[in-house]
Amino acid sequence: VSLHGHTSTTSRSLACYQTITRTLCEIAEWHFPQTVQYINIGGGMFGDVPPEMGFSETPTFDQYAAVVGEALQTSDWAAATKPTLVVEPGMAMSANVISLVTKVIGIKTIRNRTLVTVDASVFHAKPTQHSRNQPWTLIPASESARCCAVFSVVGSTCMEKDYLLTEVSGPLPQAGDYIQIGQAGAYTVVMSPPFINPAPAIVAPHGEHFKIIRARQTLDDMFKNYYFQK
Amino acid sequence: VSLHGHTSTTSRSLACYQTITRTLCEIAEWHFPQTVQYINIGGGMFGDVPPEMGFSETPTFDQYAAVVGEALQTSDWAAATKPTLVVEPGMAMSANVISLVTKVIGIKTIRNRTLVTVDASVFHAKPTQHSRNQPWTLIPASESARCCAVFSVVGSTCMEKDYLLTEVSGPLPQAGDYIQIGQAGAYTVVMSPPFINPAPAIVAPHGEHFKIIRARQTLDDMFKNYYFQK
Repeated sequence: VSLHGHTSTTSRSLACYQTITRTLCEIAEWHFPQTVQYINIGGGMFGDVPPEMGFSETPTFDQYAAVVGEALQTSDWAAATKPTLVVEPGMAMSANVISLVTKVIGIKTIRNRTLVTVDASVFHAKPTQHSRNQPWTLIPASESARCCAVFSVVGSTCMEKDYLLTEVSGPLPQAGDYIQIGQAGAYTVVMSPPFINPAPAIVAPHGEHFKIIRARQTLDDMFKNYYFQK
Repeated sequence: VSLHGHTSTTSRSLACYQTITRTLCEIAEWHFPQTVQYINIGGGMFGDVPPEMGFSETPTFDQYAAVVGEALQTSDWAAATKPTLVVEPGMAMSANVISLVTKVIGIKTIRNRTLVTVDASVFHAKPTQHSRNQPWTLIPASESARCCAVFSVVGSTCMEKDYLLTEVSGPLPQAGDYIQIGQAGAYTVVMSPPFINPAPAIVAPHGEHFKIIRARQTLDDMFKNYYFQK
């Protein structure tokens, strides 16, 4: 039997996970002292977040572990029954392990705003379409000098919200360049719908080369299940 | 050569499309009188919206056509050059032609709120996750009486926002029943990501039966492009 305490906190604070752990231990002690074997405190913790994303100080995994461990150690019930602790840090573990690499299609300026269009969409960088900019790097296709500019990187769908990066500063990309956007590992893999841009390939370093984890989605893949009249 | 005026208005008012048409005609007349052949006023119009969705009076296609036509007729440039009018009423045309039919998995009550869990997700009913309730009908699996209740219909993913219907009143569904949700034709077909629930089949009436337009997505489809290590 497992007792769950999940939260969708935006603060993701140490106090939050301390409270969840303490509360689950108290509920177990008071109501189910003989039956609860698992304490599940869910996910939602911060992972390894780069400073440019603009969060104020984020707890480390060690700090989360310390407050949760302390809450378990000070519970008489937990000390006696030694429940298994279950955590579900999906986003925290996966966000920083995948980067999106997308090709620049073109640049345009509309009312003094510079828009860099790429061959991906916001679904491949941040499907929840949050407003924070992830860390990014320009991978130039040529050695010509690039002026520093303020620009947004937008996807090649028809959606008004298709912003991968908003008003960032740096070397202005040129058509043919690539932009690498970090922290793209949470939900992008499963949240890219078959909408205009097929899902990109996923590759992983393998010795001195790369190996393909997921092949690039094709148009045939996107239309595979449709029956077309001849 | 085509002149475009697209908007993402939420009012979707007649005045909006009148202004777009007039402005495009004026721009064409002043700046490109010899070159513009197409006037494209984009989309975003209301389609056939049922009253239970809570919009105040919505224009009909005839009313949109009247104001746009009037704007074209009063333009000397349009009268002389007879440009082709292009409209892109995707959502307006497609929203009401598809309903989602989803099976009830279970009912639970949490803090006096009744949640009906179904085997689809919000992506299959309204991918933009707007707050309006679409029209719906219960398709009971048995003849037993159902009490009237206030409840929400939630999907079977782990997302907090996975609400297909919010605080609606009507006969309380039972496990095994089906719920038909209307106005599900805009973007659901292309915006269902490979996330927990595979995309549903699409069927169309065909004589006295149905024919399959799109087969139900399988788990093999979802994982088709992945390379697994043996």
